[in-house]
Amino acid sequence: MVTPRAVLFDVFGTLVDWRGSVIAGLSAFGAARGITADWAEIADGWRRAYRPSMDRVRRGMVPWTILDDLHRDALMEIARRHDIGPLDDDDCEQLVSLWHRLAPWPDVVAGLGRLKRVAIIGPLSNGHLALQVSLAKRNGFPWDVTFGADIFRHYKPDAEVYLGACDFLGLAPDEVMLAAAHNDDLAAAASFGLTTAFICRPAEHGPATGDRAKPSGPWDIVADSVGNLADRLGG
Amino acid sequence: MVTPRAVLFDVFGTLVDWRGSVIAGLSAFGAARGITADWAEIADGWRRAYRPSMDRVRRGMVPWTILDDLHRDALMEIARRHDIGPLDDDDCEQLVSLWHRLAPWPDVVAGLGRLKRVAIIGPLSNGHLALQVSLAKRNGFPWDVTFGADIFRHYKPDAEVYLGACDFLGLAPDEVMLAAAHNDDLAAAASFGLTTAFICRPAEHGPATGDRAKPSGPWDIVADSVGNLADRLGG
Repeated sequence: MVTPRAVLFDVFGTLVDWRGSVIAGLSAFGAARGITADWAEIADGWRRAYRPSMDRVRRGMVPWTILDDLHRDALMEIARRHDIGPLDDDDCEQLVSLWHRLAPWPDVVAGLGRLKRVAIIGPLSNGHLALQVSLAKRNGFPWDVTFGADIFRHYKPDAEVYLGACDFLGLAPDEVMLAAAHNDDLAAAASFGLTTAFICRPAEHGPATGDRAKPSGPWDIVADSVGNLADRLGG
Repeated sequence: MVTPRAVLFDVFGTLVDWRGSVIAGLSAFGAARGITADWAEIADGWRRAYRPSMDRVRRGMVPWTILDDLHRDALMEIARRHDIGPLDDDDCEQLVSLWHRLAPWPDVVAGLGRLKRVAIIGPLSNGHLALQVSLAKRNGFPWDVTFGADIFRHYKPDAEVYLGACDFLGLAPDEVMLAAAHNDDLAAAASFGLTTAFICRPAEHGPATGDRAKPSGPWDIVADSVGNLADRLGG
């Protein structure tokens, strides 16, 4: 295939190990407070709240809200359910900021550096711009362009995100590739004319990942790492 | 002073030598076509059209228009006036794209690399995002965040640009510094609560630069290069 002019990346799960990082951060918080809990279950529950909370924004049931605030609301609910509260404002801020400090999968930084030689690279995530800046700064993601959901005031899979990014770049959708570990994200991107790369992340959801790490659509590329994607695109 | 959390840069004149680059590009175009003209005067005239054309957008006299399109309209007018036409669409595209290929002042890339160690760095320019990506990619500007005027759909000195950038970063205005070679840009930034750094660029307008390269306000820092700014901020 022709090398795309730009390769945009989903971030949570595709580039960073949100689950491992959040479990580690919650466990450290619990240890410091002497709280015992099933931190893996809490991390998974926190993440399960993600899509429904964005969907409420997407359907106009609540006004535009950035992910930090959706994370905070979901955390309060989970803390009540798991009886790990009460959490004060500082606790909440500390825990919500875990999502700004997620560690990358080991192949990511070197792979992005190689891809950057042949294409414009950037995040196309449901995280807001400040969160993307935190993750990039902390992890050394060498972005050429930084998108955040708050630039579009829409969450994926809304068309405004995928087509808005193409428009800002001055590129046609078929000149832009979305790389993601999630079939539904790629299906939306493909429906709007972008090309697609599936990145397999068999550990994203821990032992329960299963078939979610397998490609289920006619994606242009299937790769097991960002480096492998760079190989395929000549980077 | 306290190191700002983010340092945002004006680009044309502050980081890149638009005049030298545009004169060189126009001269090469003329040489290839056998056209003789005062390319420096044409470059200066092209740039003089910049502020009035943006002001028509700022006042709502024309709808939101990106800089490539403002540049194209101004070019057509200047080509008529200097009798260097007719320019066809390809000519126009080639010449408008000169603004995507401007060369940096010699201190910029190393200075940004040092500043990046102590602060979030990014462009805050009237160029659109695609143009910023072109300049960064070509010149190796190591941005942490990329703003373009089209993200705000406003041109400086509108408040929406300066305060919009702070808001996207999740920072208070006094945590953000604007670095620019232009007193009017810094005056606007300061009026909205940002801190300010004047970068002296005595060659921006060629021999006619004069006092425009001198600071005329109570700026927090006055520096003669991005490296010098990095020195002052501990980078």
